[in-house]
Amino acid sequence: MSNAAFSSLAEFRTCLKAGPELNAASMRAAAARNGQLTKPPGALGRLEEIAIWYAGWRGTDRPSLESPQIIIFAANHGVTAQGISAFPAEVTAQMVLNFEHGGAAINQLADCFGAKLDVHALSLDKPTADFTQKPAMSESEVVEALLAGWNAVDPVADLLVTGEMGIGNTTSAAAILTALYGGGASEWTGRGTGVDDAGLDNKTRVVNEGVALHSTADPLEVLRCLGGREIAAMAGAIARSRSEGIPVILDGFICSSAAAVLHRVAPETLDHAIAGHLSAEGPHADVLSHLGKEPLLNMRMRLGEGSGAALAIGVLKGAIACHSGMATFAEAGVSDS
Amino acid sequence: MSNAAFSSLAEFRTCLKAGPELNAASMRAAAARNGQLTKPPGALGRLEEIAIWYAGWRGTDRPSLESPQIIIFAANHGVTAQGISAFPAEVTAQMVLNFEHGGAAINQLADCFGAKLDVHALSLDKPTADFTQKPAMSESEVVEALLAGWNAVDPVADLLVTGEMGIGNTTSAAAILTALYGGGASEWTGRGTGVDDAGLDNKTRVVNEGVALHSTADPLEVLRCLGGREIAAMAGAIARSRSEGIPVILDGFICSSAAAVLHRVAPETLDHAIAGHLSAEGPHADVLSHLGKEPLLNMRMRLGEGSGAALAIGVLKGAIACHSGMATFAEAGVSDS
Repeated sequence: MSNAAFSSLAEFRTCLKAGPELNAASMRAAAARNGQLTKPPGALGRLEEIAIWYAGWRGTDRPSLESPQIIIFAANHGVTAQGISAFPAEVTAQMVLNFEHGGAAINQLADCFGAKLDVHALSLDKPTADFTQKPAMSESEVVEALLAGWNAVDPVADLLVTGEMGIGNTTSAAAILTALYGGGASEWTGRGTGVDDAGLDNKTRVVNEGVALHSTADPLEVLRCLGGREIAAMAGAIARSRSEGIPVILDGFICSSAAAVLHRVAPETLDHAIAGHLSAEGPHADVLSHLGKEPLLNMRMRLGEGSGAALAIGVLKGAIACHSGMATFAEAGVSDS
Repeated sequence: MSNAAFSSLAEFRTCLKAGPELNAASMRAAAARNGQLTKPPGALGRLEEIAIWYAGWRGTDRPSLESPQIIIFAANHGVTAQGISAFPAEVTAQMVLNFEHGGAAINQLADCFGAKLDVHALSLDKPTADFTQKPAMSESEVVEALLAGWNAVDPVADLLVTGEMGIGNTTSAAAILTALYGGGASEWTGRGTGVDDAGLDNKTRVVNEGVALHSTADPLEVLRCLGGREIAAMAGAIARSRSEGIPVILDGFICSSAAAVLHRVAPETLDHAIAGHLSAEGPHADVLSHLGKEPLLNMRMRLGEGSGAALAIGVLKGAIACHSGMATFAEAGVSDS
């Protein structure tokens, strides 16, 4: 490898498969601790499961969650030329300014849950190619985007949320998912920011055309041909976080399309990730089903920006606070049943 | 009325019906603000709904949530003589000490979401009567418990969560719900802290006997005859919070039985309340259906202590942070669709 972690898709694939496993001993110790806490067995439900999972990835039976990082990747999509979004493409750059000025939903949620928020605008003046005409990215472009994600992860963070902004990216995500999972474009194409019925028909046509043009079974090639820079960057960041033992909360539909690319390369590349929420973008439930992830929340959100996952930080924080802070039956002098 | 807010069930009923309504003008103003925020319409889903609801009850279009109060009421139940719990009755007092020493789940969740936690142990040395033999409480006892709840609410709080601890109280809640809603004891009786099949049969028998003995259609009489002090106190606190314009997040099965008593007196007495979560205690979904409340979370929790509602404080905080903190399209210079 070069100085960069990887310089080709083949090298990225190797990085993906070289990651560490969770610490089974820590996970067992955390499960043993959970059994001693002052509550009826199982009474904290999923909070117990996610605290134990988190403990395994952090390598301690009594973890803390102090330094979550949220990274938003923004990019522009040539496929917007096909009229597939309810919003004009310049909104991507406008929203990046909004993130930088603290005015977006994700800014409020990051503050609310004590997360550091980083924003990476990826070559906004250079949209990906219209994938109905040619591959969205060259290999060097997709590798650059994957590296942008890989390098954006703060190694001292103890949780990662990846979010995105990119007018047109539900179309790109739908195309990726159609290529990865089959079943037809209409199964994977939703209304995004809110297109009407005619808009949805047009999006579906565009997805169909893109998938037909770039016929490949290789998930990383699917990402290159149909993806966007922000989707590749999320994939890179999710992969990096695994190599650092940093658990991930996945956001909604677009983020899940990035995760699906990794999952298709090797399912274990997502063992360090949970699904933060079920998006209101129709096909998201099916994506999560393919990924084998049960969402923590269902708030009918469909904003992107990492917002659903950011909200789930609160749930994970609560779970870890209970796990690591509660007294045991013995410590509290409470009678076990 | 005496110096106390009420001194009889009849007077409490009057207090219930005298509460204020939400501020429709504030709610409309909040809905108008929501429509201007930098996101596609509806993209924050339920977060938008609960922020607007909260704004209506707080009487401002741009509310904040700074001072949530969690109150735990603890009480003992004579019906434990019937062997209906997996835990011995002394656990109630032991858990009160655990709350006071900071070792319970609710302590960690209160810290996590910045809530003040108050614990009220209600005559633990004087359990309610075994309701299979006689009414659980006299009128003066139930009024005292309602008043304990009424007086426990901090008028400067901007959100209330009521929780409970009381070995035997899922049996009491099941009896209340059977009396209020009919359908038979087995429909409303669950496993509580974890009884086995024989234990569940016994609980169901006990609920049946209690409901048969105290045949009344008056919800407050149902509370008196089949309830517990902590259930009555939760009802009193929920009622008081409405009179103060303090929104409430309802917890799980036991809390919902207290809410159901109020709802049966007059449904609008719960307009200031949302359901924090769906409990894993089986019949809870049916209770929420009767109350017309959709739970925010489903974590398969069944702990009580206000824990599910406390976790939902994070969701409501996130919703309000977005609503009140986000920039409008005009402020951010973002193109509307």
